[in-house]
Amino acid sequence: MDIIVLKPGASDDALKHLLKKLESKGLTANVSRGTERTIVGVIGDTSRITEEEEDAIRAMTGVENVMRIIRPYKLASREFQSENTVIDVRGRTIGGKKVAVIAGPCSVENETMIVSIAEEVKAAGASFIRGGAFKPRTSPYAFQGLGEEGLRYLAEAREKTGLPVVTELMDPRDLGTMVEYADVIQIGARNMQNFRLLLEVGSVRKPVLLKRGLSSTIKEWLMSAEYIMSRGNHEVILCERGIRTFETATRNTLDLSAVPVLKGLTHLPVVVDPSHGVGKWDLVPAMAKAAIAAGADGLLLEVHSNPEEAMSDGEQSLKPRDFLKLMEELKPVAAAVEREI
Amino acid sequence: MDIIVLKPGASDDALKHLLKKLESKGLTANVSRGTERTIVGVIGDTSRITEEEEDAIRAMTGVENVMRIIRPYKLASREFQSENTVIDVRGRTIGGKKVAVIAGPCSVENETMIVSIAEEVKAAGASFIRGGAFKPRTSPYAFQGLGEEGLRYLAEAREKTGLPVVTELMDPRDLGTMVEYADVIQIGARNMQNFRLLLEVGSVRKPVLLKRGLSSTIKEWLMSAEYIMSRGNHEVILCERGIRTFETATRNTLDLSAVPVLKGLTHLPVVVDPSHGVGKWDLVPAMAKAAIAAGADGLLLEVHSNPEEAMSDGEQSLKPRDFLKLMEELKPVAAAVEREI
Amino acid sequence: MDIIVLKPGASDDALKHLLKKLESKGLTANVSRGTERTIVGVIGDTSRITEEEEDAIRAMTGVENVMRIIRPYKLASREFQSENTVIDVRGRTIGGKKVAVIAGPCSVENETMIVSIAEEVKAAGASFIRGGAFKPRTSPYAFQGLGEEGLRYLAEAREKTGLPVVTELMDPRDLGTMVEYADVIQIGARNMQNFRLLLEVGSVRKPVLLKRGLSSTIKEWLMSAEYIMSRGNHEVILCERGIRTFETATRNTLDLSAVPVLKGLTHLPVVVDPSHGVGKWDLVPAMAKAAIAAGADGLLLEVHSNPEEAMSDGEQSLKPRDFLKLMEELKPVAAAVEREI
Amino acid sequence: MDIIVLKPGASDDALKHLLKKLESKGLTANVSRGTERTIVGVIGDTSRITEEEEDAIRAMTGVENVMRIIRPYKLASREFQSENTVIDVRGRTIGGKKVAVIAGPCSVENETMIVSIAEEVKAAGASFIRGGAFKPRTSPYAFQGLGEEGLRYLAEAREKTGLPVVTELMDPRDLGTMVEYADVIQIGARNMQNFRLLLEVGSVRKPVLLKRGLSSTIKEWLMSAEYIMSRGNHEVILCERGIRTFETATRNTLDLSAVPVLKGLTHLPVVVDPSHGVGKWDLVPAMAKAAIAAGADGLLLEVHSNPEEAMSDGEQSLKPRDFLKLMEELKPVAAAVEREI
Repeated sequence: MDIIVLKPGASDDALKHLLKKLESKGLTANVSRGTERTIVGVIGDTSRITEEEEDAIRAMTGVENVMRIIRPYKLASREFQSENTVIDVRGRTIGGKKVAVIAGPCSVENETMIVSIAEEVKAAGASFIRGGAFKPRTSPYAFQGLGEEGLRYLAEAREKTGLPVVTELMDPRDLGTMVEYADVIQIGARNMQNFRLLLEVGSVRKPVLLKRGLSSTIKEWLMSAEYIMSRGNHEVILCERGIRTFETATRNTLDLSAVPVLKGLTHLPVVVDPSHGVGKWDLVPAMAKAAIAAGADGLLLEVHSNPEEAMSDGEQSLKPRDFLKLMEELKPVAAAVEREI
Repeated sequence: MDIIVLKPGASDDALKHLLKKLESKGLTANVSRGTERTIVGVIGDTSRITEEEEDAIRAMTGVENVMRIIRPYKLASREFQSENTVIDVRGRTIGGKKVAVIAGPCSVENETMIVSIAEEVKAAGASFIRGGAFKPRTSPYAFQGLGEEGLRYLAEAREKTGLPVVTELMDPRDLGTMVEYADVIQIGARNMQNFRLLLEVGSVRKPVLLKRGLSSTIKEWLMSAEYIMSRGNHEVILCERGIRTFETATRNTLDLSAVPVLKGLTHLPVVVDPSHGVGKWDLVPAMAKAAIAAGADGLLLEVHSNPEEAMSDGEQSLKPRDFLKLMEELKPVAAAVEREI
Repeated sequence: MDIIVLKPGASDDALKHLLKKLESKGLTANVSRGTERTIVGVIGDTSRITEEEEDAIRAMTGVENVMRIIRPYKLASREFQSENTVIDVRGRTIGGKKVAVIAGPCSVENETMIVSIAEEVKAAGASFIRGGAFKPRTSPYAFQGLGEEGLRYLAEAREKTGLPVVTELMDPRDLGTMVEYADVIQIGARNMQNFRLLLEVGSVRKPVLLKRGLSSTIKEWLMSAEYIMSRGNHEVILCERGIRTFETATRNTLDLSAVPVLKGLTHLPVVVDPSHGVGKWDLVPAMAKAAIAAGADGLLLEVHSNPEEAMSDGEQSLKPRDFLKLMEELKPVAAAVEREI
Repeated sequence: MDIIVLKPGASDDALKHLLKKLESKGLTANVSRGTERTIVGVIGDTSRITEEEEDAIRAMTGVENVMRIIRPYKLASREFQSENTVIDVRGRTIGGKKVAVIAGPCSVENETMIVSIAEEVKAAGASFIRGGAFKPRTSPYAFQGLGEEGLRYLAEAREKTGLPVVTELMDPRDLGTMVEYADVIQIGARNMQNFRLLLEVGSVRKPVLLKRGLSSTIKEWLMSAEYIMSRGNHEVILCERGIRTFETATRNTLDLSAVPVLKGLTHLPVVVDPSHGVGKWDLVPAMAKAAIAAGADGLLLEVHSNPEEAMSDGEQSLKPRDFLKLMEELKPVAAAVEREI
């Protein structure tokens, strides 16, 4: 059911023209004439009305507005699947009772570094190792990541620790290489609406961690999840990482209300990245606790042995000892909301 | 210490003119000539440089930018007072170990209603009763509150329950009446930069709960606290209530990262209003827990016995039984971060 | 006509309860049952449904959303009055064919200064002199304006030049003084939702220049105009002055599309303040031209004889010679859109 | 020259450690000790300090902030090239005195349609034909464009009219096909930070029209231009198309102040897309005029013969007769700012 509002004084011809158009799509209409406006309720499977058809109706003479009631995503919706999706990655789960902690450096810098951080975060209780081999950087002159070499080091870290690997894909042409090494493929915030990339990762059988775009609405984010799922890959993890607002005290504004909102709209797991969300390591612990209290299924945390020598994002990385302390502090918070960590 | 950056190719005369100006303010300068830019470090008590003088320097020939290092607020800063401010209101505290819960309806509708809600929230563990007698409404045709009558009912509710009263002031001309009835004077988001009102509440001896403006930065918010404090009233409580962003899934975007940011910058207590922050009652519990986990000193919660008959903001109000359930759920979260509730 | 969307699976009881409620307000309903949702079209004078009643309906069991079709403002709407409002101030008009130029310094600093700027801007073709006597400043330690003394100097400038005076009111308690001196009362961006102040200026017979709030939607802005008009003062001038966004290259983001949007929604005149909008004097000429090309009825321009000595906002002020040059450049632009300047 | 601000009370060791680090990068430092803060001015070629090194310095003990004075883009900067870049495409220019009008439908729907629109816009005075063959759509279920077939139809339209073709590239794997048909390659707003795509179009010899991201700052936008230019392709056209804000009256908020800001920062041509900027065809003429008055080098306009049958974005398309009327109205505006159209 969708609703079409006519302009005050729209002609009978305009209405007739509209009704004919709807009929041609196999839809029927319920016309309500109010004192100021006429409203047309559209009955039938309006989910088949595409965005462009909606825009075209909006452009018709006499039409003031079109209001869609049906959510534009299906596979991702709670209505499509009422129970939570729980994703299993080499025996570690995301979406279940246990809060998944995905920790590691922003970039993979060398083999020793990533293996040693993997060992440290494992010891502290993390379930996954993360690290970037392909890095999206705002400057063409900045370090762009080690590429396949970085993927090999991540695999080596997994070998040593058993921790599954989460790492970012930027280019559809790297997908073949990526699937050889990664356990979870990350799509970064800047690529949340790189639709070709979404279709590609939809066609493989690896879970996808989909970061929210800097200025993406929750609806657009779920549409991007739908892109991936529409190709058959239903293992999508949503990751809130802060949105862009006017506030400059933090790098982004971490939108923790997205967690309960998503829990209502979708069955997909929701994790939170407080490191990118706030951009300053000393604010990370408070926001990690808040994320769990808000109901997040997991955390993405930047950990670096030596942040001031980091090749990227040093400012927001926890040192291993801070990470260990945080993991201890998170336990009672998780227990308070009937989760484990 | 402030920093003035000159434009590439700024003339010696421009520099000389600038240095003379600084000298006339009793300041000295440290000039660093780089290969592309000349930088002037300003030494002395630059806090006496007013905004308008800063703008005027920025308008000088040859000046590219002025960067201020000193925070423009003083009394509100953590540097001015390192220990947390704890505010005592009729024996209840805000800013101490105990998380203060301020609960009640958006508007005071009648005496029975406010007294009965006060009794219910007290039974559930709230420390303060809130309710609006003067209501800021976007429409001139909407209910504007009961005015002084509403204040009397609030006082009646306090009489019956012992709960101190938190209520909003909109107009400096109502201050005299307000101080007779209220225990904590609330300044609403839309009045956060109503500077005359700030000065007025700065001149009384009642704690002020200062809500963050819809699009106010944390720095501007602290400047508004400074306005109040500059008149001698140092009992200011900061209340995060959501900022305006592009997201429409929630009424506002609750910026919980403001809590740890403020804890670093100021000694003033910080409370969170998840009801206005998200605007939908079913999202409130998750965000209330998150607020406490993030380190908030208190919560402002809308509670209404019959939200669908509420005269304002019914959509975001908890029913007393939901409030009671939430209070139970908040206890372990508070304990997990070493607080009580 | 308003629309109420029920949740999927809303019970018949919920619907019956809703219909009864509507009936109690003297409204009838048109129920459309679709395959996924039931929609209730509300017929009758729904403009009498207040905001709070709308919220209460939204809070009812089984209700998913309420969509209002009727605009919440009336007196301000183009539907209420189809022809443009043209405001006459001592023989100068705003809203007619001639583009009104309101120029002057941010703050009145002394008598000589304001008189000499008034003479200069008049010579260049301005129709109004502006200048602040009461200044809203983010810091309590900044210059707050000369107060009534400043108003007297403005009146003196009018005496000398014949230019009507536009100046800002911040406090309802200053209104009596203000009406003695000012010809147009300005309500600043930070006070756009200071509803008590709006009601006060609604009760006098002086035109009001209402600046858009930093993060106010066009709808909220028109509601604030409605506040003033609801008290009987229909001479409201809307002033776009930039909104707050994530962009930091300019002080605010000047939303020129507000001009044609408002021209469709309201009969009130619309002026643009590029000086505050961009915050840098060298960007002002381009945006002043663009404002006229977009259909603005006037411009608010900051002009200061010596911006680097200005007591506020020096950075965004034009010097008189720049202003003169700009006025010359604006003439062909105004002519190109069939206006005069 | 960059500036590093130390925290109050930073130790001498911290300072020594910092100075040693700078030295290791071949930089020297000028230390200014103020009463409250110590400031380190960094001297030498600080442009070689990468983002990650900057972050790492920010993460050092005792460091409060790092402020970079040098712009992070070079090739795109006005300082690198003072005269305007004028791009020649099959004899039509962008960036010169003539305002370039790029017109056509959102999507190429079939051959007859694109050829006939090309003929109509040419007759009205457009210099380029635009149309999407690859379409970024928020829904995976929406029309994704005709692909290579659409490119062939565009080439056919060029054949018939002589108008060069502007069309969007979404996937690096389509670049080979694209260069066969397109004259100007468009990078859409959602791909503005698809860095791999930027590098690819940087390696061909076709002008690139780079749309601003929905929430990208002007600085980030110029960094994306720098990505393209860093690979050797210096023919980049910047296209303002509206940013995402809280306002919902328009589809986006068209930031016309970006035009004069960019004219100061870069030598690259700047065009404006009012159709996407406002999203409603009846607002387009006012904003097209305003764009030219603000100094834009060109316009991107959606034109569709039958917007209500359009396969995408019908709501914002002008009909050919409206376009013709607009082109007539734009002529005096262009003349008023000493341009031609």
